[in-house]
Amino acid sequence: MPKTKNTLNPRKEKIHEIIFEADTPMGKMFDVVLMIAIITSVIVVMLETVQDLQVNYRQIFIQLEWGFTIFFTIEYSLRLYCVYRPMKYALSFYGIVDLLSILPTYLSFFFVGFHSLMIIRALRLMRIFRIFKLGHFMKEGAVLVEAMKASRVKITIFLIFISVLVTIIGAIMYLVEGGEPDSNFTSIPKSIYWAIVTLTTVGYGDIAPVTHFGQFLAAAVMILGYAVIAVPTGIVTNELLREVNSSNNTQACRYCTKEGHDDDAEYCKYCGEILNEEITE
Amino acid sequence: MPKTKNTLNPRKEKIHEIIFEADTPMGKMFDVVLMIAIITSVIVVMLETVQDLQVNYRQIFIQLEWGFTIFFTIEYSLRLYCVYRPMKYALSFYGIVDLLSILPTYLSFFFVGFHSLMIIRALRLMRIFRIFKLGHFMKEGAVLVEAMKASRVKITIFLIFISVLVTIIGAIMYLVEGGEPDSNFTSIPKSIYWAIVTLTTVGYGDIAPVTHFGQFLAAAVMILGYAVIAVPTGIVTNELLREVNSSNNTQACRYCTKEGHDDDAEYCKYCGEILNEEITE
Amino acid sequence: MPKTKNTLNPRKEKIHEIIFEADTPMGKMFDVVLMIAIITSVIVVMLETVQDLQVNYRQIFIQLEWGFTIFFTIEYSLRLYCVYRPMKYALSFYGIVDLLSILPTYLSFFFVGFHSLMIIRALRLMRIFRIFKLGHFMKEGAVLVEAMKASRVKITIFLIFISVLVTIIGAIMYLVEGGEPDSNFTSIPKSIYWAIVTLTTVGYGDIAPVTHFGQFLAAAVMILGYAVIAVPTGIVTNELLREVNSSNNTQACRYCTKEGHDDDAEYCKYCGEILNEEITE
Amino acid sequence: MPKTKNTLNPRKEKIHEIIFEADTPMGKMFDVVLMIAIITSVIVVMLETVQDLQVNYRQIFIQLEWGFTIFFTIEYSLRLYCVYRPMKYALSFYGIVDLLSILPTYLSFFFVGFHSLMIIRALRLMRIFRIFKLGHFMKEGAVLVEAMKASRVKITIFLIFISVLVTIIGAIMYLVEGGEPDSNFTSIPKSIYWAIVTLTTVGYGDIAPVTHFGQFLAAAVMILGYAVIAVPTGIVTNELLREVNSSNNTQACRYCTKEGHDDDAEYCKYCGEILNEEITE
Repeated sequence: MPKTKNTLNPRKEKIHEIIFEADTPMGKMFDVVLMIAIITSVIVVMLETVQDLQVNYRQIFIQLEWGFTIFFTIEYSLRLYCVYRPMKYALSFYGIVDLLSILPTYLSFFFVGFHSLMIIRALRLMRIFRIFKLGHFMKEGAVLVEAMKASRVKITIFLIFISVLVTIIGAIMYLVEGGEPDSNFTSIPKSIYWAIVTLTTVGYGDIAPVTHFGQFLAAAVMILGYAVIAVPTGIVTNELLREVNSSNNTQACRYCTKEGHDDDAEYCKYCGEILNEEITE
Repeated sequence: MPKTKNTLNPRKEKIHEIIFEADTPMGKMFDVVLMIAIITSVIVVMLETVQDLQVNYRQIFIQLEWGFTIFFTIEYSLRLYCVYRPMKYALSFYGIVDLLSILPTYLSFFFVGFHSLMIIRALRLMRIFRIFKLGHFMKEGAVLVEAMKASRVKITIFLIFISVLVTIIGAIMYLVEGGEPDSNFTSIPKSIYWAIVTLTTVGYGDIAPVTHFGQFLAAAVMILGYAVIAVPTGIVTNELLREVNSSNNTQACRYCTKEGHDDDAEYCKYCGEILNEEITE
Repeated sequence: MPKTKNTLNPRKEKIHEIIFEADTPMGKMFDVVLMIAIITSVIVVMLETVQDLQVNYRQIFIQLEWGFTIFFTIEYSLRLYCVYRPMKYALSFYGIVDLLSILPTYLSFFFVGFHSLMIIRALRLMRIFRIFKLGHFMKEGAVLVEAMKASRVKITIFLIFISVLVTIIGAIMYLVEGGEPDSNFTSIPKSIYWAIVTLTTVGYGDIAPVTHFGQFLAAAVMILGYAVIAVPTGIVTNELLREVNSSNNTQACRYCTKEGHDDDAEYCKYCGEILNEEITE
Repeated sequence: MPKTKNTLNPRKEKIHEIIFEADTPMGKMFDVVLMIAIITSVIVVMLETVQDLQVNYRQIFIQLEWGFTIFFTIEYSLRLYCVYRPMKYALSFYGIVDLLSILPTYLSFFFVGFHSLMIIRALRLMRIFRIFKLGHFMKEGAVLVEAMKASRVKITIFLIFISVLVTIIGAIMYLVEGGEPDSNFTSIPKSIYWAIVTLTTVGYGDIAPVTHFGQFLAAAVMILGYAVIAVPTGIVTNELLREVNSSNNTQACRYCTKEGHDDDAEYCKYCGEILNEEITE
């Protein structure tokens, strides 16, 4: 069923513009309505799992559920209809999520237990990031995303280091605390779970050392975590600063048109041309 | 009852100066006395809720309460009297808070249960920020407020991102842990509450995963939170740096037109020209 | 008993040099020995409070205690003897701490219960910061201290803001959760304690909200704390950067001898003299 | 058995290149295979400690264990064989870890209880940091390591300060809470453990103050921790910024001798001279 780009159909074009773009008033309104529908539907799915509400408002929940399912089915059909290559959309991440968020309601007709899969609808919340394309959020969001991307490698190295660290700490704590009768360090994976809970300073307290030596080691791990928690913060701050600084330069060389010059630069660092024409002429 | 600005009354002017401004010695003294009265009254309201003290010092509490109520009533009346437009003050945030913090004592004469509303008095503590207008706090406080304002958009984007993240994590954890007999993940809202408690590294421990897979997912969430907690810090640090830097360079050399001079600079550091023209002419 | 500065006594001078200064080999050795004695004596006081050890090693503890008391008594006497103005030392912070850390052992002869005051000896640990004067710790430590001092005002404003915030949050949570039968929010001071435990992400879990609305508010407080925790970090990072940058300039103007020039400065910003003489001659 | 460097043996050379270096395709493949083997063997040791799995898959675990032990024994023998100075390798940190991670399996033949020592294998995970030598991880990792090294002294001072702080806080809390009947502050070491758990914001909740004054002090400690947690972050961010900045400017203009050029600069931004002489001559 894929269409070539040439066979443009004005009605399809119109629907595509409304559903997939946010430049026109109609497109913006569709985005806002869809956002509200997604958020409301997720709230309904959430409230359905609360025992008290489920007992008292069962009927209303079922009606709301069908309402949202029909609305999202129409939206899904229109997306499939107006897009150039329906299969590509259907197999994309959002296509699969869109399908999975309407299927459970229909399937619950025939099968029992599919109902709980409706929680998948929560993934549709990710569409909310489209609002960053509406207005002045865009630039600020882009800086954040760029900083995240730029610190990707450093954060990965850091996470590998943390993984090795918690495994070794977990193994040692299992050796120290594992044999105690009232200890909760019953296996190495559980000890590693404890190490992560402690190093990240979450500290549930469901597992805590009981021996003197175990508490001493735990204290050492916490102090270590204190120093280590500084590292990702340092990385991100660093990248944010670089992003912001590099996006500050507004000068472009009039000869080679390249940008990215420092504030105090007088000559283009790429071609050697003088930058500030106010001074030269 | 609103007055026009023209009908100035010297006595009103005097009271207005004392109550609303902090430039005169009397005005500063009034601010300090009011601050102490507010803090003491809030401490009294706080201590009243402690069972032991309530039983033993009931009589003293009632006397103190009436003392503060009468003092604040006089203050409220004077504010209404001396301000140019009493209705505007009465309907402003502080006007409503000022009224609400004296009403409960009077109402408790006629009705039972209004007493607990006296806690509203805690909101009066916000007047404490007036002390930032006293002396050198002002400039430093302004830098902090500016940095907060400047990072508003980035922090908002970040909070939306966190909201979507905890909803999805909560939904997944409910699917994984919800069916377990001794699990505390009894509904999605509760699971989201857990996700927030975990991601912010608060970690009460009132809800904690019990299955192996649940603990594995929880560990992943914590590691994620570890990396994510760096972002708001990075944003604020970044803005603070920009605030401080941008408030440094306001001078430009009139000869070479370069900027970036320190506050204490008297000569251009690039060409040696005198900077402050007040001194040269 | 105070001595005038003129009546210098060579033996006193020698002892003063050893005890109060760290420039000579003897002085350094004394500092190290004293440090070890203080740390060991604190460890002994700490271990004495452990039930098991107290039962088994009671005799050894008493002997060690007397040993340290006699050593510290000699040190205290020598300090009083060699210092120019003994009363000033005796009434200084360290003088009082030094006295209080030897008194309990003697008093426990005559009175019961003074023994537990020996914990005051822990305050002597503060003398450990003298090691910062030994070697290359000094400069790095000074940068940290300067950064702390410079952020004093901002941190104070921030702490006042946090205090007001936790009081208001505590009052609201007491209103919401206070009436619940199994709630731990039994008074406003306790609710404020909870607010601090939560906002600082410590999260003991001894007090936790049980109502749906209380948990919703708690989640909001945590998200707020997430954003707010960034502020002190931003402040300190900022000041550290400024400290380090301002201590980098090694250039001094040869005309007015002032320092503090930027790396790219060519003319003294105070008197307009050319800075880099390599270029001018 | 040590060999001099002259008696080079082509086969040994070849094996050395594969095992110890990562420049050749074979060397890279060996590194990857070894990494997978180490990770898998650590996972197997971890899962073995889980009660349920141990009961059901005992036979498989024993087989896997012997498989890994034989593989690592061959690797260890080859390392000893091909290295120039086998004793130096055998006594190095990795040499001892490599030996200790194969010994327990053999020893468990003759003795009972040696099996649990197999956890030592977790230390082999540290070899994973070799992957940083594969590709673009290297530069980014080096920046992190440099920043860590540069902040070593500051972090040490900070840790000493924290140690003194938690000892004093612990001693005070023991005085305040120690005598209470249902208190968990049973000794000073335990109180110090609590102080560390609180100051690092881990907050297990296994020990928490029960008296009003104790909770007030605990709240003060938390607020303090809030301000103090900013310091290591500030230090690391600071050093990371310096590392990144200082690694940028290695070029100096040969005409005006100014530095501070970006990595991609081809012309001096101050005087317009060409920077890279490789291109000009």
